[in-house]
Amino acid sequence: MNPSRNTLCLDAADVVRLVRRLGLSACIADVAKRISHEFQRWPEFEKSARLAAHSADGVIELMPITDGTHYAFKYVNGHPQNPQFGLPTVMAFGVLADVKTGVPLLLSELTLATAIRTAATSAVAAHVLARPGSRSMALIGNGAQSEFQALAFRELLGVRELRLYDPDPRASARLLANLAGEGFELRLCASTTEAVQGADIVTTITADKHRRAILTPSMIEPGMHLNAVGGDCPGKTELHPEVLERGQVFVEFEPQTRLEGEIQQMPPGFGVTELWQVLAGQAAGRHGAEQVTIFDSVGFALEDYAALCFLRDAAMELGIGSALALAPQTNDPKNLYGVLLQQAAGLANPVAAGGEAPI
Amino acid sequence: MNPSRNTLCLDAADVVRLVRRLGLSACIADVAKRISHEFQRWPEFEKSARLAAHSADGVIELMPITDGTHYAFKYVNGHPQNPQFGLPTVMAFGVLADVKTGVPLLLSELTLATAIRTAATSAVAAHVLARPGSRSMALIGNGAQSEFQALAFRELLGVRELRLYDPDPRASARLLANLAGEGFELRLCASTTEAVQGADIVTTITADKHRRAILTPSMIEPGMHLNAVGGDCPGKTELHPEVLERGQVFVEFEPQTRLEGEIQQMPPGFGVTELWQVLAGQAAGRHGAEQVTIFDSVGFALEDYAALCFLRDAAMELGIGSALALAPQTNDPKNLYGVLLQQAAGLANPVAAGGEAPI
Repeated sequence: MNPSRNTLCLDAADVVRLVRRLGLSACIADVAKRISHEFQRWPEFEKSARLAAHSADGVIELMPITDGTHYAFKYVNGHPQNPQFGLPTVMAFGVLADVKTGVPLLLSELTLATAIRTAATSAVAAHVLARPGSRSMALIGNGAQSEFQALAFRELLGVRELRLYDPDPRASARLLANLAGEGFELRLCASTTEAVQGADIVTTITADKHRRAILTPSMIEPGMHLNAVGGDCPGKTELHPEVLERGQVFVEFEPQTRLEGEIQQMPPGFGVTELWQVLAGQAAGRHGAEQVTIFDSVGFALEDYAALCFLRDAAMELGIGSALALAPQTNDPKNLYGVLLQQAAGLANPVAAGGEAPI
Repeated sequence: MNPSRNTLCLDAADVVRLVRRLGLSACIADVAKRISHEFQRWPEFEKSARLAAHSADGVIELMPITDGTHYAFKYVNGHPQNPQFGLPTVMAFGVLADVKTGVPLLLSELTLATAIRTAATSAVAAHVLARPGSRSMALIGNGAQSEFQALAFRELLGVRELRLYDPDPRASARLLANLAGEGFELRLCASTTEAVQGADIVTTITADKHRRAILTPSMIEPGMHLNAVGGDCPGKTELHPEVLERGQVFVEFEPQTRLEGEIQQMPPGFGVTELWQVLAGQAAGRHGAEQVTIFDSVGFALEDYAALCFLRDAAMELGIGSALALAPQTNDPKNLYGVLLQQAAGLANPVAAGGEAPI
């Protein structure tokens, strides 16, 4: 068996084990470092907007990217009604492949990694966009991603004070319980307005697949940084359009964000800055303490590329995962038909009575 | 553990076992029947040209498609130099998912299935395009796909006489050996011209990633059906452009074939017919015994959809494959963070000494 053609496979339990071994905060910090690094070499990547298949119940997307050495793609769904069936709203898996041969090097569950990379990207952006010394954050929407956002902002910015609001009080209670002992000062709020008031940073991560105005102009205070994560597909927004006019908007990959982000509400000429430019020192971030900065995050393939590289390195170091043969093993690669004959000769586990039909 | 969120996983050995159990010819016939059926309901599918990432060494592609009930995609590479590294030129795997929830139902190796569905599609096309009573076929290019083409044409059209030509005599010798005992009358030829002369059907499946003119106008005889399989990406063709003007060209999905097929050599207005229209009775196929018909095959996602459905049905019937957990198992789908805590409490196989870091 040629090992170079086996794929390292990380299932959901493997990824959980890996994250627990390293610690979630350390994983977020490592992925954030990689995302920052990859964004700084942005021009080296061949980028495209993700390929989305929309249906009445949700969306299924493929997100490919390559730097000419590695090729990565993620499969991810978004189905707001899934919890009714006991399923997560968002599930994902991805592949990292070798561009030289096309061999898939890693196949990994990415649901957990998606939460990690989304939070890491938010914190990487806030690190260069929020006012220095930001310590308080409003978390509007206390669902599956909220703990990850909280830990990422603690890790990269030193955020310690969290104001929580969710229309479902059970969601906030769960978040409160999960974050107990993590060193936060936590405050449950009765409304978005109350949570936002006086916060340095406002993170919106709501799940409704509709146009909402979770944040309205009257809530926005000078100098705030808005981290708008929940609006991430056509028809799904969280910010009132006038909020976008109140500050400078930063995006991941402009062509994709025009379709999927908060700025889908704005005319095509509405000015935005790509985050990589700020990280690479090619564009300014925040202009002074009074400016409102807005990170209109939708999630981009480059972040998954960074997450897949992290998972591969960590899994190999820790010895986690199993080998999956995704391509037939043959002595003669030009003789594909031969695998059917080889198998007949050397079948390790002969199949049940009746044997096999002649090919 | 919720079974609805587990993915049926077929690795390379599973697919080989499955094909051997049913017999290759029966598999080809079953896939051909499904392809014909799916093409006849063509308008029900949301189609897009595949997403290709080209590099100096080859190409990596994603091919998605959905009918609103199931979503399928294939990952496939094409690397002509791979045999130097002991790897197949083409490797593939794919996923069949549930549109209602986004759950991946099946993850399967598709290298073998790609060969099966490519040959099945060729035979489905020839069945409605070649002259009735066609019994002889020239096989130009005797590489990994050639046995599959031979068996598909025997199965669907009753082709018995094969004329083989490949510039590499070892390839033809291997094909000859692999097809011994399959009931063919086999003839090794010294040139493409010799192989093509008098054949009812000419199949070209060469691998060079360049513009070639394997078939030139002088070789083409009235009434021939040309099955042009090898030219399938930008810059890779097999037919002299004048050959295309000699007959009626049939394609799978026109927008994709314009980029990747033989007709990439022709002006944008060059007339073609989509195969599904012929199969659905909406367009004419062959006009009489003298016409030259040309199937400009590049491979389309719908064929992989059919192959994935076949694999799933066959694997479930035969009890082949294993369960792969591609999404975290949690009692509360809104509590993704909780999987890290659950795992701590109920870890079946505690990790090595030193334990786990606090999350």
